[in-house]
Amino acid sequence: MLGCWRAVSAVSAGRGRWAACACSRRLLFSMAKSKFEYVRDFEADDTCLPNCWIVVRLDGRNFHRFSEQHEFKKPNDDRALHLMTRCAQTVMQELEDIAIAYGQSDEYSFVFKKKSRWFKRRASKFMTHVVSQFASSYVFYWKDYFKDQQLLYPPGFDGRIVLYPSNQNLKDYLSWRQADCHINNLYNTVFWMLVQRSGLTPVQAQDRLQGTLAGDKNEILFSEFNINYNNEPLMYRKGTVLIWQKINEVVTKKIKLPEEAEEKEVEVTRTKTKVVPLHCDIIGDQFWEQYPEILAEDS
Amino acid sequence: MLGCWRAVSAVSAGRGRWAACACSRRLLFSMAKSKFEYVRDFEADDTCLPNCWIVVRLDGRNFHRFSEQHEFKKPNDDRALHLMTRCAQTVMQELEDIAIAYGQSDEYSFVFKKKSRWFKRRASKFMTHVVSQFASSYVFYWKDYFKDQQLLYPPGFDGRIVLYPSNQNLKDYLSWRQADCHINNLYNTVFWMLVQRSGLTPVQAQDRLQGTLAGDKNEILFSEFNINYNNEPLMYRKGTVLIWQKINEVVTKKIKLPEEAEEKEVEVTRTKTKVVPLHCDIIGDQFWEQYPEILAEDS
Amino acid sequence: MLGCWRAVSAVSAGRGRWAACACSRRLLFSMAKSKFEYVRDFEADDTCLPNCWIVVRLDGRNFHRFSEQHEFKKPNDDRALHLMTRCAQTVMQELEDIAIAYGQSDEYSFVFKKKSRWFKRRASKFMTHVVSQFASSYVFYWKDYFKDQQLLYPPGFDGRIVLYPSNQNLKDYLSWRQADCHINNLYNTVFWMLVQRSGLTPVQAQDRLQGTLAGDKNEILFSEFNINYNNEPLMYRKGTVLIWQKINEVVTKKIKLPEEAEEKEVEVTRTKTKVVPLHCDIIGDQFWEQYPEILAEDS
Amino acid sequence: MLGCWRAVSAVSAGRGRWAACACSRRLLFSMAKSKFEYVRDFEADDTCLPNCWIVVRLDGRNFHRFSEQHEFKKPNDDRALHLMTRCAQTVMQELEDIAIAYGQSDEYSFVFKKKSRWFKRRASKFMTHVVSQFASSYVFYWKDYFKDQQLLYPPGFDGRIVLYPSNQNLKDYLSWRQADCHINNLYNTVFWMLVQRSGLTPVQAQDRLQGTLAGDKNEILFSEFNINYNNEPLMYRKGTVLIWQKINEVVTKKIKLPEEAEEKEVEVTRTKTKVVPLHCDIIGDQFWEQYPEILAEDS
Repeated sequence: MLGCWRAVSAVSAGRGRWAACACSRRLLFSMAKSKFEYVRDFEADDTCLPNCWIVVRLDGRNFHRFSEQHEFKKPNDDRALHLMTRCAQTVMQELEDIAIAYGQSDEYSFVFKKKSRWFKRRASKFMTHVVSQFASSYVFYWKDYFKDQQLLYPPGFDGRIVLYPSNQNLKDYLSWRQADCHINNLYNTVFWMLVQRSGLTPVQAQDRLQGTLAGDKNEILFSEFNINYNNEPLMYRKGTVLIWQKINEVVTKKIKLPEEAEEKEVEVTRTKTKVVPLHCDIIGDQFWEQYPEILAEDS
Repeated sequence: MLGCWRAVSAVSAGRGRWAACACSRRLLFSMAKSKFEYVRDFEADDTCLPNCWIVVRLDGRNFHRFSEQHEFKKPNDDRALHLMTRCAQTVMQELEDIAIAYGQSDEYSFVFKKKSRWFKRRASKFMTHVVSQFASSYVFYWKDYFKDQQLLYPPGFDGRIVLYPSNQNLKDYLSWRQADCHINNLYNTVFWMLVQRSGLTPVQAQDRLQGTLAGDKNEILFSEFNINYNNEPLMYRKGTVLIWQKINEVVTKKIKLPEEAEEKEVEVTRTKTKVVPLHCDIIGDQFWEQYPEILAEDS
Repeated sequence: MLGCWRAVSAVSAGRGRWAACACSRRLLFSMAKSKFEYVRDFEADDTCLPNCWIVVRLDGRNFHRFSEQHEFKKPNDDRALHLMTRCAQTVMQELEDIAIAYGQSDEYSFVFKKKSRWFKRRASKFMTHVVSQFASSYVFYWKDYFKDQQLLYPPGFDGRIVLYPSNQNLKDYLSWRQADCHINNLYNTVFWMLVQRSGLTPVQAQDRLQGTLAGDKNEILFSEFNINYNNEPLMYRKGTVLIWQKINEVVTKKIKLPEEAEEKEVEVTRTKTKVVPLHCDIIGDQFWEQYPEILAEDS
Repeated sequence: MLGCWRAVSAVSAGRGRWAACACSRRLLFSMAKSKFEYVRDFEADDTCLPNCWIVVRLDGRNFHRFSEQHEFKKPNDDRALHLMTRCAQTVMQELEDIAIAYGQSDEYSFVFKKKSRWFKRRASKFMTHVVSQFASSYVFYWKDYFKDQQLLYPPGFDGRIVLYPSNQNLKDYLSWRQADCHINNLYNTVFWMLVQRSGLTPVQAQDRLQGTLAGDKNEILFSEFNINYNNEPLMYRKGTVLIWQKINEVVTKKIKLPEEAEEKEVEVTRTKTKVVPLHCDIIGDQFWEQYPEILAEDS
């Protein structure tokens, strides 16, 4: 059916030919596209169940290798952690309806409001907008944090989506991630002390920690390295919570009052909503009592 | 339940205290994490039906605005098109099992092989790896194409996934995108001629084109601007097809032969598989007959 | 590959032949089945999101025709309504974890508990067990309600599954069905009065009711037929709610006491849990306050 | 909000009251229903991917117990097998677009055409219509096959749905079921011979068969019971295939010719499409070559 069109395209068509061929070409093209459009029906509906919290969790792809190639400080690299948080802030600002985010290591979870109608709650939209915005921001803001350390290649991230019907389910999800942060960070803190200070090989350090409990690890830190784990930075131990907060900004504005000839500088207080990072416990009730708006019914 | 732990963490815990508390802390933490882990069961299985082609299509988010802010040349900006293709090549190289990709304007479709077992065929993995790798590459390679034109902010992309059971369905999908490319490009070519050369406002140009058919648009291009649409660059009219091709590379290697004292330079031919861009018709049969391996049964 | 096996099967195989062929046959058959077993992987996971109410709603297929062919009394046939309820009771007794059911006309909704783990919460299991048990019961118990009215053919039912994350969503679902019952029954009551008593044709009755409101319909019933709609049977106006209730049953048991020679009849009270039909309002709060166990947290 | 309505309903409302209240009642009811209707949005779309074969497989629920309570003859009960097939025929006749069905033991698979648009390809519709029609038919036709053997209770069935993209996948699915039939029937045939003729207990028979291959089982049948398995009825060994076939029916019609005074009996041949049971091999190619219309492209 499309033979004619391609044949015509292949020759240098003079003016007269167009006129002669216009009618059939028109038909051919509108027929061509409409003939193929049935393929749109193969796209499945992936609408998220209403009235559930929508969580998108993103993880760095092969970040073990990535962190080595970019000489991340072990066990925690402030530049890398701050860059992750900067990207997550961008995601919250650019996308709609994110109530809270939580990050640790090379992962970040974004929580969309229960009542969100963004993109008709299509799962693919939530996932792909989050990870693409995060990934482009990672490269875009890299130099703000890593300065002369060149980015060697564009990193990848994967994402997944999970629904939580109740507030308790959501809080338990976030608690799970923060408990994971704690367990990993305690392990990594001791592991790298053994390697960096005691000169153990990674395998030796791993063997030493095999089967130890949290208390044992704290004990090693204290007795061998004089480190009280509880004095380690909160960002390492608790990860990063991003929430929306009203901030009063004092800005200086030039105003010309009607009765005066000249402009005058006046200070104006504006209330803005900003994404603010916290490094606090979110497993207990205190956080949720302090910020009740996060889980509020209209959320 | 976690009260004790947090209370302990909050004080400066001396050595003796740790010993005293180790046992219960251990219990508390392993209990804490395992208590929350039930939330993993809320993640739904999104495995793609086996033996179907998996297509991930990616689109720029708000690229109308993005292209204006970055002064894209209209109707086609070579820098932007080449950057898109560079990103798509990176996606094909970094991810597994992509048999062919097709791009036009600010969109790209990636076709994963029917038999792919990558990430157990989980839809979220395919989608998020594609869009995140593409997005980070877009920023990473920007300066290679846009030189002094600064990237103002990190762009977003959305993605969707569609399954096609038969080869014909897949070919029709790609034909649909190429027919779309043709229709849009013909329209845009005339539209921007009317604006740039004839000085019409966008609204006037739109009115002028209202209801015109392909033949009419060709006629306007020819009679008013002396442009034969068929001589426009293939990349604009056909978009870009990315396929894998074996390339013979001649490399110069320094080799030290056993009987000789010094190294010698020899030319070695290596066969590599590379992602190659084409700007050809994929609606007709010729392309598929020329590259039968793309749809081969074991694909 | 299976050629050998089928060839052998086709001839009358003597004893010696079996011995000769046994080894390859064994291989062929286990190979045959395992060769095909890959098709199991095509079955998709349809697990329901945890912590949500699972509602299966069933509807009679073509029951307009069915009710005419079986001379159902209009607008309500007690035999048909009681049969529906009998089937629904059977479903509740035979299946697991149904907390409440609601029926009207030719439909019934079954609500599975939020925490149900029955069949790993697979949607297809819930749907097919409900409709098949209901359908077989419909034929099985038909004669108990319809007596000499023969069942002319086996009826069909369709089913769907819907998840509700919150108790309020579930109550609103049930309210929606009961509001539907009210609106339909009011309409049908007037419609059939106009046809049966006033001698209007169905089309005339329909025209008469076109655009009337609830008040208008009540007025017609009252002024023309001396019927106060509120005195109509509750089962017609409210539908049927099925809940589990503890019932004390007094049964007579024969007991042989050790010191006595003969058996003695004694009355024993046993508590049984039974499915009980109610015809009450479930839109207001009263019902839910009276039966708090239905929505209880461990449900 | 609904307080007023329920209050009014609770009292015996006189005529005047209706008039007074009509307006608000109308509002209340339409508001009530529309207020609740949001719950419809919680129903997920379960459309099947186009251009795939849709298989619904049904299994008897607890048929081990059911077959014992109804004294099914072991290892095969002709009455039960014929009843299953009768139900499957009813399903094929009552539902749309079933190209072929295959049954064995207490299971039946129904294959809907690739191009079927029945109920917009909604998975729940396919599953529930199949199992409910099958279940009601099972009770309805029971007495035609089991005569004086009373049906003790209404049986349940479960169903599942699987999509197959290619003809080969579908043929492999059906081959898988037929290979399963063969393996089970061979086992059951020997098992019950050992129990019924040799007087072994079920446990002894099971132990005897532990680890035996197909050839061993054939050998036991032949040497101990003088049974050549290949002479066993095809229905037991191959199961039942249901396909559509054109049947020429000769019917006698009374016709009154215009020139003649009296009616005359004439024989008329009518072509009807009927569901026909076969007991043949469907693993090899022969069946599919004999009935090419089953897999035909427009199917």
